[in-house]
Amino acid sequence: MTGEFELLSRLRGALPTAPTGETWIGDDAAAVEPPSRSLLLAADVLVEGTHFDLTWSAPADVGWKAVTANVSDVAAMGGRPLHLLVSVVVGPAFDVEALYAGITEAARHWGCAVVGGDLARGRSVTVAVAITGTTDGRAPVGRGGARPGDAVVVTGPLGGAAAGLRLLGDGLAFDSDPVAADAVRCHRRPYARPAEGQAAARVGATAMIDVSDGLAADLGHVLDESGVGVALDRVPVHPAAREEEALGGGDDYQLVICGADGPALAAALRAAGAVEAEVIGECTSDPAVRTLGGRPVATEGWEHEW
Amino acid sequence: MTGEFELLSRLRGALPTAPTGETWIGDDAAAVEPPSRSLLLAADVLVEGTHFDLTWSAPADVGWKAVTANVSDVAAMGGRPLHLLVSVVVGPAFDVEALYAGITEAARHWGCAVVGGDLARGRSVTVAVAITGTTDGRAPVGRGGARPGDAVVVTGPLGGAAAGLRLLGDGLAFDSDPVAADAVRCHRRPYARPAEGQAAARVGATAMIDVSDGLAADLGHVLDESGVGVALDRVPVHPAAREEEALGGGDDYQLVICGADGPALAAALRAAGAVEAEVIGECTSDPAVRTLGGRPVATEGWEHEW
Repeated sequence: MTGEFELLSRLRGALPTAPTGETWIGDDAAAVEPPSRSLLLAADVLVEGTHFDLTWSAPADVGWKAVTANVSDVAAMGGRPLHLLVSVVVGPAFDVEALYAGITEAARHWGCAVVGGDLARGRSVTVAVAITGTTDGRAPVGRGGARPGDAVVVTGPLGGAAAGLRLLGDGLAFDSDPVAADAVRCHRRPYARPAEGQAAARVGATAMIDVSDGLAADLGHVLDESGVGVALDRVPVHPAAREEEALGGGDDYQLVICGADGPALAAALRAAGAVEAEVIGECTSDPAVRTLGGRPVATEGWEHEW
Repeated sequence: MTGEFELLSRLRGALPTAPTGETWIGDDAAAVEPPSRSLLLAADVLVEGTHFDLTWSAPADVGWKAVTANVSDVAAMGGRPLHLLVSVVVGPAFDVEALYAGITEAARHWGCAVVGGDLARGRSVTVAVAITGTTDGRAPVGRGGARPGDAVVVTGPLGGAAAGLRLLGDGLAFDSDPVAADAVRCHRRPYARPAEGQAAARVGATAMIDVSDGLAADLGHVLDESGVGVALDRVPVHPAAREEEALGGGDDYQLVICGADGPALAAALRAAGAVEAEVIGECTSDPAVRTLGGRPVATEGWEHEW
């Protein structure tokens, strides 16, 4: 067995060190240089049995996903991620170093740094991440700014994560099938879109959200907050996914963006790396209109009972 | 049963609203005005069965304590708390609204605001809070600045929280005994010391830490990081506590502070509200010296096996 302090020392040793003038891990709080305008703050928690299943995801995958989900929240405001605080709850038999390896890998990939956190014992693996970010002086892009006539643009195909989870459960996620393998990657190692979110903000996005609960539910939040409806022409479906997975499946972390000039928005997103970005519909003045190819589409989303 | 969205709407309705120009709860991330210098960031997680027992603490107590532990981390850097991100994991039978009531009460008490977070289902109640703060332009007070000859000052008596938990377990926590009742209050509703921490920073504290794991272990961190030893004259013990609870009991959230002028430091702490603040010893140049009343005292603290 490893002592707690030895483990903490090893975990700390694997993390990058603070630049001069900043304090990161190892004191009561981190002390960092604040951004000059608009500090973004968000938190997302992943819980074993609710958000992930250790049968299908390795500890490092869970760490990657916990960081990426938080980066996606910053991306959806048009922001750039800065700092991460990572609180981890695990039992004694869990490979916590592999979890932190996934956290560190994702932090490096998304250009942000773990500056603090906590580690505790518990019955279910829980990874609670909080993130800071900045819009570098631009106005944050919220959910409530879409206007009638705005184009609706998505950064790429949807339903991959839901399809990947289904294929894993069905025992059909063969490595030799690149489409299935990509769907499994969408579930285990999703991508956030911070470059795309910032590009959208620069070209005048009016509203933006990341697809974490499913396109229908998340676009529904934008419509509700903006007081508009939507007429969707089509929904881009991941090649491994079914249309209902593209509409209702969460955890894809694609961005859905509204703006006056759809083709310009899609072009900016493609320039930022979203090669499959496309216009998928238009906002309507009647908030009751919520259609896909002319047929009504439910935007309430699925909810737990409490 | 309550729907998730209805519950979230009720919880959101009970929280204060953002000032003009800021976005708090309800979008992908909060957007707030950053402090002008030295952004403090910390996170602390409380887990059912590890940090609290719902036999002894009500849900509102757990919410209070989760916020207060984080405020204490900011206080221990000499900072002022600003924003909270609160991620909560609960099962279906848990009174999540009472938990949030305790969170909101503590946030109001400590002068900070819940600006975002997450809510998820799981098997154990888990409250993961992240906090921002600022030192208002002063240098943060870390653990590594204590010098030989510095006085060691504590903001008040120790061991109350440990004694309260013991009295609850023994069935001896009678409301009619004000000493026992205060010990139970120390366990259920601890106080952080942000005013005291800021006052200490203003009068030249060289090192500071909050007592969350026990005086011996936490002062040990300061000694290790500063490369000094300590000769303690005495330890102020809560009237319900035993000396070993004052040395080893955690969760008191008193501050232990080093500084060249002990009486001035103690006076500043008393002026900030810590009426029982006192000098308890002195830092020594030999890091191997760790004594209380001339006898050796262990500063390693208790650690989990991993």
